[in-house]
Amino acid sequence: MRSLGPELERLVELLAKLPGLGPRSARRAALYLLKRADGLMLPLAESLKVAAERIAPCARCGNLDTMSPCSLCAVPNRDDSLLCVVEEVADLWALERAGAFRGRYHVLGGALSALDGVRPEDLRLAGLIERVKTGAVREVILALGATIDGQTTAHYVTDQLTGLGVRVTRLAQGLPFGAELNVMDDGTLMAAFAARRDM
Amino acid sequence: MRSLGPELERLVELLAKLPGLGPRSARRAALYLLKRADGLMLPLAESLKVAAERIAPCARCGNLDTMSPCSLCAVPNRDDSLLCVVEEVADLWALERAGAFRGRYHVLGGALSALDGVRPEDLRLAGLIERVKTGAVREVILALGATIDGQTTAHYVTDQLTGLGVRVTRLAQGLPFGAELNVMDDGTLMAAFAARRDM
Repeated sequence: MRSLGPELERLVELLAKLPGLGPRSARRAALYLLKRADGLMLPLAESLKVAAERIAPCARCGNLDTMSPCSLCAVPNRDDSLLCVVEEVADLWALERAGAFRGRYHVLGGALSALDGVRPEDLRLAGLIERVKTGAVREVILALGATIDGQTTAHYVTDQLTGLGVRVTRLAQGLPFGAELNVMDDGTLMAAFAARRDM
Repeated sequence: MRSLGPELERLVELLAKLPGLGPRSARRAALYLLKRADGLMLPLAESLKVAAERIAPCARCGNLDTMSPCSLCAVPNRDDSLLCVVEEVADLWALERAGAFRGRYHVLGGALSALDGVRPEDLRLAGLIERVKTGAVREVILALGATIDGQTTAHYVTDQLTGLGVRVTRLAQGLPFGAELNVMDDGTLMAAFAARRDM
């Protein structure tokens, strides 16, 4: 790629680090941006800078925001008695988009993983226990991934919360909306059978 | 997406405009970036700004570079008698990566298209004719897309160059390297048959 020049090479290299972009699509994105220097490229540069400088994890819940406590922690019209524990901010966003929940959140920052070397002290667990101890929480909803790591984390968190006088629940498992049986994995089918309900 | 806050919403919105990223992957990219504010996000912001401000089309060939004439026009060890005409800078990059060509380039900036309303005056055609008239060019190689628009453009450019005492060639058409016949389209198969060669 000796024809690109150092500035363009560096841009392509940085863009290629984004999830979803490889070297090829990074080059395409760089060209697309260069054709829109004022309309997209400079605004994106500025937006990245502003976001990098102003957005940080909320000290209470771990959500990303320019304020701490974040807007979801600060807003008054949410139910303080319900606390939804998620692995990542992206999970919180997904639940908010779905409008599935009107309580408060707690973002662990990942899931326990022997493989990836994620230990309890790497997660936002102390803050969770503190919130349950001192807050008005009646129910902790573990909205963790239906994965080995997610379920390991769910059991670990449940243990940690035992004796604190709080109900601990987890999301239902079963067929996803719109799923056809013949494309589902065995684990999902077994869980869906085991949790079957009367019509 | 009311939970994102205006800075993050704007970042996701701008990222989603990149080719290859939709709203979902833009959110994922934004989170990925926020976890790497100093290591990736700020360097990317700076790189975008530098590239937007310094990189512009070469006045001679249309390649993108910080210099004009660009490094490919300025470098001495390329063959001035061969001029390769491409639609886009991305095509030039592809040929350079392949090491397919050691002459000079001319980037038209697109292909003629009735559908997209691209007319001859929208392309870098006057510059091409000027280069052929005044330069040392002996052969113009039309490395244009094997598409309706690409071939229309090839014929138009050939007409424009007629009488200028220059040989005009185009790239061969046929099966791409590694292709299986059963996945190729009829046009390619017909072209490959028509241009068949002795073993």
